[in-house]
Amino acid sequence: MNSGQRTLTILGSTGSIGKQALEVVSSLGEMYKIGYLTVNKNIAELEKQAMQYSPIGVVVKEEKYYKEFVASTSFKGEILSGEEGVAAAAEFDSNDMLLSALVGFSGVIPTLKAVRKGINISLANKETLVAAGSIITEAAKESGSEILAVDSEHSAVLQSLVGENKSEIEKIILTASGGPFLNTSPELFEGLTVKEALNHPNWSMGSKITIDSATMMNKGFEVIEAHWLFDLEIEKIDVVIHPQSIIHSLVQFIDGSVKAQLGLPDMRIPISYALTYPRRLSYNFPRLDLAEIGNLTFAKPDENKFRCLPLAYQAIKTGGTAPAVINAANEVAVEAFLNEKIRFTDIADIISFVLERSNIIFNPTIDELIEVDYETRLITENYIGSLFK
Amino acid sequence: MNSGQRTLTILGSTGSIGKQALEVVSSLGEMYKIGYLTVNKNIAELEKQAMQYSPIGVVVKEEKYYKEFVASTSFKGEILSGEEGVAAAAEFDSNDMLLSALVGFSGVIPTLKAVRKGINISLANKETLVAAGSIITEAAKESGSEILAVDSEHSAVLQSLVGENKSEIEKIILTASGGPFLNTSPELFEGLTVKEALNHPNWSMGSKITIDSATMMNKGFEVIEAHWLFDLEIEKIDVVIHPQSIIHSLVQFIDGSVKAQLGLPDMRIPISYALTYPRRLSYNFPRLDLAEIGNLTFAKPDENKFRCLPLAYQAIKTGGTAPAVINAANEVAVEAFLNEKIRFTDIADIISFVLERSNIIFNPTIDELIEVDYETRLITENYIGSLFK
Repeated sequence: MNSGQRTLTILGSTGSIGKQALEVVSSLGEMYKIGYLTVNKNIAELEKQAMQYSPIGVVVKEEKYYKEFVASTSFKGEILSGEEGVAAAAEFDSNDMLLSALVGFSGVIPTLKAVRKGINISLANKETLVAAGSIITEAAKESGSEILAVDSEHSAVLQSLVGENKSEIEKIILTASGGPFLNTSPELFEGLTVKEALNHPNWSMGSKITIDSATMMNKGFEVIEAHWLFDLEIEKIDVVIHPQSIIHSLVQFIDGSVKAQLGLPDMRIPISYALTYPRRLSYNFPRLDLAEIGNLTFAKPDENKFRCLPLAYQAIKTGGTAPAVINAANEVAVEAFLNEKIRFTDIADIISFVLERSNIIFNPTIDELIEVDYETRLITENYIGSLFK
Repeated sequence: MNSGQRTLTILGSTGSIGKQALEVVSSLGEMYKIGYLTVNKNIAELEKQAMQYSPIGVVVKEEKYYKEFVASTSFKGEILSGEEGVAAAAEFDSNDMLLSALVGFSGVIPTLKAVRKGINISLANKETLVAAGSIITEAAKESGSEILAVDSEHSAVLQSLVGENKSEIEKIILTASGGPFLNTSPELFEGLTVKEALNHPNWSMGSKITIDSATMMNKGFEVIEAHWLFDLEIEKIDVVIHPQSIIHSLVQFIDGSVKAQLGLPDMRIPISYALTYPRRLSYNFPRLDLAEIGNLTFAKPDENKFRCLPLAYQAIKTGGTAPAVINAANEVAVEAFLNEKIRFTDIADIISFVLERSNIIFNPTIDELIEVDYETRLITENYIGSLFK
């Protein structure tokens, strides 16, 4: 055993990010051993991962699949279940790094537990900072936990800021592909199908984040996330449309100079950067060839077409629980859209409706946040139900 | 007086870079006071600069203009002339920073003198490193002098490398506008006029460097300069055509990630970066707006059209005095082209002819370099003369 070896626990190991993270861990050689791997229900994939990576333990969150896994697995380590299992994995004493690749608000509590124990976080679950940014960043300051975002945009900002002074940042500019509907005319928006919305031009991701990309709520969430990660006023965070997803984001400094990180759209680069930060290790991922790509284009986002983006700005300007409200309303609305209960354009309408009617709590506790999340979901579900009476 | 104030001497203060540097110095407030300002013959501009910046002394290199200046000036400080005057200014004891904005080989000796005294260098004169890279960088290592390139490309590389580990660089990629003849068909190259060659699309610069941009020898020189500045094998230095000159250069790391510095084509950004490195100070230069620019394009350089570029690679691979030879041959050939004695396409032919016939000295002393420079000029002049017999 390598004495300098670090322990990595992955929440959501069978999702798109989780799988790519394990691929990166393999190519890092002895740098990491695996603490826990957690899944909701994909026990077939978990079985393979447990055999290949020999974690200390695994968690199958859903009781039914947990029982099935226990009955059939050859895995000899600890097997846990439920939210308590996920939380135990997150705050496992030996964790040096927690990769949170959960989807939605479910990532908040286990991440907070790990942060409070001073464990460093590779954060792919952006809803954690959207919903609970003030609580998470406050806890990280107290415990010394370092939070590194695992998405191409915030990784680009982080890489552009290495060696720079925070006081010399003028603004950061997040690039957005614009998703599958960038060039779709607004009249067609009402009739857009789930299949069309799931067809992202550059990135292969889970269905929730792919719909968020199509509405550009994903970019709005990234604006909120950047606000917390880099401790910057919302006025200093811009979005520019860049359909090729080659420039992953930019930082403009007070002298007018701009720095950026570029690369092919390959999540393994930001994953490995977070896992080896601030060092870089050698990989044979395909390389960017600008001459081959030939053309990079940029445009202002159309906020009349992508109304979720200004809603995100509005929520963070409002502050308090407003971002948690749009996050919860968005989760429910996206699920309803995926289940073909509502139209694509209803997503922004529903979030806007719910946000306007919510009572904002400023400086919420974590329990208040959980309550707001729960109530907002109920309100949103009821509202969606009422639309079809 | 500000006790933390630093002394800056500018060699070539009335050229394009010199003037912009003084503008930057003004906006830096009390950071710098001026040691010496040196000019070849532009005494009218020097008079204005001396009044505005109150240097300790000035140098008028050409005797005739020196006498004229002495007879007419209101400047009360020291007034020197000749190469000795320039050298004295360069190695002035109180210099904290020397900005060398001379043109051609004339920059080598004064820069070397300053480097040997441990004075930091802001280097706009790329021929210094092209002709004498090994001697200059060796001397800098011994004295602790820091050499910062004042051009947009190397400044971009330097900015992209801040906080990174040198061992993690995979390659650097210098961007090239391609100059005024990027899209000119090769058949038309023979007949290109001086006026056409001086019409650079993005940058307003002196005539020597503008012709070097039109032949792309300028980019070849930057490749050689990058080799010395960043201590990288020539195989790790690439060139990509980028006509908009917005991405000023890029660094690719071993993990496949690429970093870049961007900005409007404005030399005041790299000048101020060199003068305030590693900090940045606030300026109200116009800001980059990618959405407004809309489109960035890239292509491989056409080495059949721009033959000076592979000649530069050939020279640095050959090593020893080969880069000094192409530098001297190029200076003579460009002057002959500016005087309409030779055709545009003759420049590369002449350099190639001279390089092939030169005896390369490896590990030359500075005296040997001066000798090679002198002899190469004679050989090139004779060869040009012979073409028209």
